[in-house]
Amino acid sequence: MREARKRLEAGLRLTARRLHPEDTVIRIPRPDGTSLSIGGGRSFVFIAGPCAVESREQLLATARKVKEHGAVLLRGGAFKPRTSPYTFRGLGEEGLRLLAEARARTNLPVVSEVLDPALVPLAAKYVDVLQIGSRNMQNFPLLEAVGACQKPVLLKRGFAATVEEWLQAAEYILAAGNPSVILCERGIRGFDPVTRNVLDLAAVALVKQISHLPVIVDPSHATGDRQLVAPLARAARALGADGLMVEVHPEPESALSDGEQSLSIREFAELTAGLAMGDS
Amino acid sequence: MREARKRLEAGLRLTARRLHPEDTVIRIPRPDGTSLSIGGGRSFVFIAGPCAVESREQLLATARKVKEHGAVLLRGGAFKPRTSPYTFRGLGEEGLRLLAEARARTNLPVVSEVLDPALVPLAAKYVDVLQIGSRNMQNFPLLEAVGACQKPVLLKRGFAATVEEWLQAAEYILAAGNPSVILCERGIRGFDPVTRNVLDLAAVALVKQISHLPVIVDPSHATGDRQLVAPLARAARALGADGLMVEVHPEPESALSDGEQSLSIREFAELTAGLAMGDS
Amino acid sequence: MREARKRLEAGLRLTARRLHPEDTVIRIPRPDGTSLSIGGGRSFVFIAGPCAVESREQLLATARKVKEHGAVLLRGGAFKPRTSPYTFRGLGEEGLRLLAEARARTNLPVVSEVLDPALVPLAAKYVDVLQIGSRNMQNFPLLEAVGACQKPVLLKRGFAATVEEWLQAAEYILAAGNPSVILCERGIRGFDPVTRNVLDLAAVALVKQISHLPVIVDPSHATGDRQLVAPLARAARALGADGLMVEVHPEPESALSDGEQSLSIREFAELTAGLAMGDS
Amino acid sequence: MREARKRLEAGLRLTARRLHPEDTVIRIPRPDGTSLSIGGGRSFVFIAGPCAVESREQLLATARKVKEHGAVLLRGGAFKPRTSPYTFRGLGEEGLRLLAEARARTNLPVVSEVLDPALVPLAAKYVDVLQIGSRNMQNFPLLEAVGACQKPVLLKRGFAATVEEWLQAAEYILAAGNPSVILCERGIRGFDPVTRNVLDLAAVALVKQISHLPVIVDPSHATGDRQLVAPLARAARALGADGLMVEVHPEPESALSDGEQSLSIREFAELTAGLAMGDS
Repeated sequence: MREARKRLEAGLRLTARRLHPEDTVIRIPRPDGTSLSIGGGRSFVFIAGPCAVESREQLLATARKVKEHGAVLLRGGAFKPRTSPYTFRGLGEEGLRLLAEARARTNLPVVSEVLDPALVPLAAKYVDVLQIGSRNMQNFPLLEAVGACQKPVLLKRGFAATVEEWLQAAEYILAAGNPSVILCERGIRGFDPVTRNVLDLAAVALVKQISHLPVIVDPSHATGDRQLVAPLARAARALGADGLMVEVHPEPESALSDGEQSLSIREFAELTAGLAMGDS
Repeated sequence: MREARKRLEAGLRLTARRLHPEDTVIRIPRPDGTSLSIGGGRSFVFIAGPCAVESREQLLATARKVKEHGAVLLRGGAFKPRTSPYTFRGLGEEGLRLLAEARARTNLPVVSEVLDPALVPLAAKYVDVLQIGSRNMQNFPLLEAVGACQKPVLLKRGFAATVEEWLQAAEYILAAGNPSVILCERGIRGFDPVTRNVLDLAAVALVKQISHLPVIVDPSHATGDRQLVAPLARAARALGADGLMVEVHPEPESALSDGEQSLSIREFAELTAGLAMGDS
Repeated sequence: MREARKRLEAGLRLTARRLHPEDTVIRIPRPDGTSLSIGGGRSFVFIAGPCAVESREQLLATARKVKEHGAVLLRGGAFKPRTSPYTFRGLGEEGLRLLAEARARTNLPVVSEVLDPALVPLAAKYVDVLQIGSRNMQNFPLLEAVGACQKPVLLKRGFAATVEEWLQAAEYILAAGNPSVILCERGIRGFDPVTRNVLDLAAVALVKQISHLPVIVDPSHATGDRQLVAPLARAARALGADGLMVEVHPEPESALSDGEQSLSIREFAELTAGLAMGDS
Repeated sequence: MREARKRLEAGLRLTARRLHPEDTVIRIPRPDGTSLSIGGGRSFVFIAGPCAVESREQLLATARKVKEHGAVLLRGGAFKPRTSPYTFRGLGEEGLRLLAEARARTNLPVVSEVLDPALVPLAAKYVDVLQIGSRNMQNFPLLEAVGACQKPVLLKRGFAATVEEWLQAAEYILAAGNPSVILCERGIRGFDPVTRNVLDLAAVALVKQISHLPVIVDPSHATGDRQLVAPLARAARALGADGLMVEVHPEPESALSDGEQSLSIREFAELTAGLAMGDS
């Protein structure tokens, strides 16, 4: 392990803490002129919202509620990568427009996934943070497209990517000129059907040691089980993660995608309240 | 397993043998007016060439030699997906031009990987088969771009993709209008460092049963060990696979990428001779 | 990979082909004074029988039938390792007695699993080959107990064991004084629910290269899908495996364990006939 | 996931929180007449000591030091399961005797691994808690032997065991009459060489929800990297784990086994001090 860790560190340049000892802090402006900071250990941020933007009503209602309960960044998928071509794949640009409207109404910056390098400029017009999903972690033209853009990037770990591959994917973005990358651990594939993936918190601890980039954790996708979100959120914070990304849906049972893992508004409220109590 | 298999089959449409019982045979025209067929159980084809196109000399020499020893399709990477942004990433369009030249000189059709949906039309001008690599198996805009093209597609299985995800990725291409997909198993991630990946021949057998598409096997990437290529090639053929994709390099020890797993010309000659003897 | 393979080979002694270039051939005596040989490349043997010995009738009927269709060694579990303590765990010594009776009536030697070092002498009184199951591959007192015994041992690979761990487990048996070990690949854990495990035929090819011990393949446990048994059997033979172990049950649908993966008598007959035709 | 979780819970009896809502608290007597409690959420216990008992001096020095810095249970291997038969396999009964002496001198109860059902009564004479190691999690005769014993059992999760298999292994012990089982998560096999295993903290959270048994975490074996022990320890506690098991060696660099992952005395002192501060 020690040798593998040394080799991994030796291959890093722009993402390496060895060369850049200070924590990177990503600043995301809000409509009201203030800004949100991620990284640097000062606070533990909540990113929340529905898996997919389904309608104006669903999104605005969710946005207001997650803000009320502590979220500082609104998530919502407009272009959804789906295993089958025959399932709901998102509202596309209309979804981006709704996210921008939700931002205007709530003062919450928004994050949404991009799939196609050619659509990165379009997405960057609407959203504050561009998300690279797990399936695209090694989509190098896409990494270069978001690297050429000036919006922060949320880079999810591939579901079977090594830590080295994950950090090298971040190197692509930084090498293309964009220093603002937030890493997100969301579970790796394993053999046990009782959870969807295996949340790899040791990887989070390792990345915090060898890289200066902020790292957040997505326990919703990691486990596919809303009952596991709260304990894993506590663990992620205790470990030194910079924040949490969770799926919240006003009616999880009727969600068009990933309902089983989404929190209800009430569950999200309990989650953030529980973590806040732990702060005292 | 039986239920998982049933669910998987039930989700397939255009790729399903249930709905399309006849084997799909992909026909690839050659410069001399004849054509190469893949699929349908009539022959076991060899696809060979270097991991990356490195130079005119390297490519032409390899092309002549692999043709002499039984290859019917020349492979060579012009756009290479590489973990680190700081390593050799291929000659780009110049590599595609060299492949077209090698085709003209040897009458071998050529296959090369595409990474960016925007570059699919460019690649389609030069090559006969468009390859989707393992990291891009769920790059849906790329699948749709090759689906909108009329060139056959070689779709590698993602290194941690389920059989369902692999066949649904093929559905994307067929649903976009391109019926000519060759599937390629190249190993999945495992825990044993003695081979690079785990070649999943059961998945090949399963796909041959539930889909009508041709399936080939890439034992070079699967194992990362040239000594294992010949026995796995025999196994793949016995199983019913439609062909083999192997990396061949005139000087494996000095290859710019993947030398450890590349066969020398002599080793490729022995491989095809050994399999031909098994035919009698 | 090359370095990992070298390190693996360097750690082997008694199992290493490097030190013992000749194939080991295991000879198993039959009641009629002849003997069965496994290893050495002369023939591809079939080991068949029910997952568990359930009754005298079931075992004798199966034994006669599998012999009629080409099996040379009868398998049957008397002590069954089961995930839950509340399920059928085998007939115990009575199962061993029935196996011995089946041998007497059919002239087929028998193999059965042992779980407890203290019961190895008992099992050795009844059976011809002692099986170490996947869960016990690193049960070192059990390996030493069968190593101290003079009956051949069938050592299944652990379902998450590296090739190195598997061969070192065989070293334990040889180092304890028993040179007669047959290795059996039965699939490793993976992430795809459509097969029970991932049959690792590259590991079989590798072990045949670096060790002199015979290696057989168990596609029934590997896949949990009887439709995949025949193609994988062909692949295993083409690769150079020394034989096959399959579960056969007169009425798979009513088996007390593992019915989904068991072949019926007719399916077993087709399997061996199909492989025999391939021989011509 | 929801269905898999329901099926898993439905198969549990003696270990199920559904049937036994109260947390089990294991009480381990000390030489001075007091006792140590594990479980029930009242405290987070530290189990520490060397991977293997190497000598009287090493053990006694380590025992005194880990006690001084907060350990409440002393670990040390006397019978070591080792991949190769040619490496150091522990001092055997002499190691157990040294553990008993260390207990007498420090008032710390001791835990040590048992490998052979026949040696369980011997080990039970010397130690306070019997450990079942990862390789033996499904060694059913061994589970029954410790189940027939009245000493508490520390049951490590198999390195490729599902949560269901782990809890069913605990069922074997409880069904054999021993209600005192402490579960220990120690990492599962994965594909990334930068850590030895993947610590599965979601499994810990899940087991705490569906079972009443105490669960501890072993980050030393899980990661093989001493720099990751402290953050994972914080995460485990925040999650609700009942304690931690770590390897501590006076001179990690010269340890006969597992030096790379062992903490020095100073590192252990910092670990427990850091966690104690978090308590305030």
